[in-house]
Amino acid sequence: MKEQTNNNSRRKFLQKSAVASAAMMSGSWAAFSNQNNMSTEETANNVIPNGPIKTKGYAATDESGKLSPWEFERRPVGDDDILIDIKYASICHSDIHQEKGHWGEQKYPQVPGHEIVGVVAAVGKNVTKFKVGDRAGVGCMVDSCMECDSCNAGEEHFCDRGETKFTYGAPSEAEPTGITQGGYSNKLVVRDHFAVRVPDHISFEEAAPLLCAGITTYSPLMRAQFKVGDKVGVAGIGGLGHLAVKIAVSKGAKVYAFTTSEDKVEDIKSWGVEEVIVVDDEFKNMGAYNKTLDYMISTIPYQFNVTPYVMCLKPGGTFTFVGMPEKSEITLNNLMLAFARVNFNASLIGGIPETQEVVNYCADNGIRPSIEIINAEEINEAWDKVVNKEARYRYVIDAATF
Amino acid sequence: MKEQTNNNSRRKFLQKSAVASAAMMSGSWAAFSNQNNMSTEETANNVIPNGPIKTKGYAATDESGKLSPWEFERRPVGDDDILIDIKYASICHSDIHQEKGHWGEQKYPQVPGHEIVGVVAAVGKNVTKFKVGDRAGVGCMVDSCMECDSCNAGEEHFCDRGETKFTYGAPSEAEPTGITQGGYSNKLVVRDHFAVRVPDHISFEEAAPLLCAGITTYSPLMRAQFKVGDKVGVAGIGGLGHLAVKIAVSKGAKVYAFTTSEDKVEDIKSWGVEEVIVVDDEFKNMGAYNKTLDYMISTIPYQFNVTPYVMCLKPGGTFTFVGMPEKSEITLNNLMLAFARVNFNASLIGGIPETQEVVNYCADNGIRPSIEIINAEEINEAWDKVVNKEARYRYVIDAATF
Ligand SMILES: [Zn+2]
Ligand SMILES: [Zn+2]
Ligand SMILES: [Zn+2]
Ligand SMILES: [Zn+2]
Repeated sequence: MKEQTNNNSRRKFLQKSAVASAAMMSGSWAAFSNQNNMSTEETANNVIPNGPIKTKGYAATDESGKLSPWEFERRPVGDDDILIDIKYASICHSDIHQEKGHWGEQKYPQVPGHEIVGVVAAVGKNVTKFKVGDRAGVGCMVDSCMECDSCNAGEEHFCDRGETKFTYGAPSEAEPTGITQGGYSNKLVVRDHFAVRVPDHISFEEAAPLLCAGITTYSPLMRAQFKVGDKVGVAGIGGLGHLAVKIAVSKGAKVYAFTTSEDKVEDIKSWGVEEVIVVDDEFKNMGAYNKTLDYMISTIPYQFNVTPYVMCLKPGGTFTFVGMPEKSEITLNNLMLAFARVNFNASLIGGIPETQEVVNYCADNGIRPSIEIINAEEINEAWDKVVNKEARYRYVIDAATF
Repeated sequence: MKEQTNNNSRRKFLQKSAVASAAMMSGSWAAFSNQNNMSTEETANNVIPNGPIKTKGYAATDESGKLSPWEFERRPVGDDDILIDIKYASICHSDIHQEKGHWGEQKYPQVPGHEIVGVVAAVGKNVTKFKVGDRAGVGCMVDSCMECDSCNAGEEHFCDRGETKFTYGAPSEAEPTGITQGGYSNKLVVRDHFAVRVPDHISFEEAAPLLCAGITTYSPLMRAQFKVGDKVGVAGIGGLGHLAVKIAVSKGAKVYAFTTSEDKVEDIKSWGVEEVIVVDDEFKNMGAYNKTLDYMISTIPYQFNVTPYVMCLKPGGTFTFVGMPEKSEITLNNLMLAFARVNFNASLIGGIPETQEVVNYCADNGIRPSIEIINAEEINEAWDKVVNKEARYRYVIDAATF
């Protein structure tokens, strides 16, 4: 199925070869194809709404972790902004941590959600990146200084001036609610640079999880520079982990998936891994993997005993932590780290160019998250399931139900 | 002064060139020179004592951290053993941590000390590495399986069979006291492989601290593969840190020394560093070093706030932790590590070949620890001073006073 879609799109593309070269220079053919699918009518339809944008969504109102329907306003569409009619937004474990106050006090009501896809409904007068009707996605950040070295290098999440603005809960004078509000809603106003193109040959609902889970695992996996045939461990096979597995397999790694959920084994095997290790409470079966892996990424989103995992790496190997535990603290045993001779690092999301890259890569290579579509009123139940490790593997909210 | 010593030894060496080649193959010319300084009379003097070796030392008898004089027996000199008449043993912060039970319960009485130098007094019948009269040093370990890949690779501290035996407190059936006993004493029986040669052109008392503080800092510094002119940070300028500074300076790094002791500044400057940063309680003055260093080694021997130090590294830089905090735990802020894009690792001592290498390197290149010689009865006072950061920079016990 996916292959077919790919081939169709590719054919269309080849037919347009006369104007292809300029677009090719800017990166993916999918982006090009998308850009040129737009009709003049759609372009002409750019009506920039006056004043704030009325929005419907689901918000946390306290640290209970329960969301409820909320109508609020977003800032007017500015000259560099686009307005997105949200089609889908997916649920990331981070949403739950942040709204429950695990990472610090929050301002409420707050709408979570940083895996957002939809259709461009209006563009500000300076905007050239998008036109009305374009398919667009927004991830974990919505603004930065755009002038510093990091921002210029496409690492807007490391803005040297500390002006990276996260998608929800970040103080924002421009927003009528005083903070940024996330994607569990039907409309979004965002600076054009911070939206990426969603190619035609991936569905909206399957693209959504790429905006956080995709880039958060893709970025460290690419940085690890593992070679085809290298043994890559993935610890924690949830929303992030299952994408890490699929991406690493696609890039040629022999993947070893570590999960505590026996009933995920068949799913994981179907994604092409080398082995699935069901981790027991006492880590008994992990000894067999002592010093066997070249690289390991952990997506486990809470404090856990890192030692048995780190011990699976070869001396000189690297362990990357992308889960975000409460209080953001990890406790390491110094002796263990010394004996294992492992490098330990952590990683968070990625910049906008790399986010575009992972979306294109997954679209082009048939990598699709495993998802379950839900309605807005099922969000609270879905959150409980995420916490109880019952998600298979990403809940995607249909924004038409807000 | 040191240069002169060097030249004299080198001249002697050249005069012996007829028999040099075999010894050269085994490593340092200093080792060769040493080996051949021994008279036939000394060789003839190898009288292997019968039975256990009566030894005088200072032992901990409980977790109080107070030592007292103790007479005990060491195992008889076995076929692969050497007997060392200890000349000096120096005080490492680890001695204090271990005897106070910070790293786990101990068996007492226990004699600490793993920076040990002396003269070979007898050799077992299989021993070819040493002869009576040789100058020898012993560090943090005294045995391992000697058959596994790690042991064969000269990484006896990473013995694959877990048979690395540490110098004191390790269960040992061969020892009359049931555990290994360390260097705060006048005699030591040790397997020949685990002693290194101490070249003639470094004094015993200055060689002692190289056996732990030297190798523990040298090993990760060499592994870091910094280039001449790279900016290397050293955090914690005590026994280990001051040697890290001197080694890194000698290897061509621009060294940034971070200390909490204002009154160490002049000393540290005299060792050729680029800058000394006196760290205040709130880390205010560390902001200026944000993202400036290529590599950093911390020798701080307790739990501390790692974040401001890690922030001094350039993205992609590496932070090595060699201090050994209580319970061996380090707590890291995951977010911080992700934003800093720093690799974190830990390191413990080094193998026997590399221990020989650091002793030779320091002897040959004029690197000398800054020491203060004390008598046995001053040990308890010295321990208090180490804990209170008053050591300048290594206390060396004169073993003649036991
Ligand atoms: Zn997320
Ligand atoms: Zn910036
Ligand atoms: Zn030591
Ligand atoms: Zn071994």
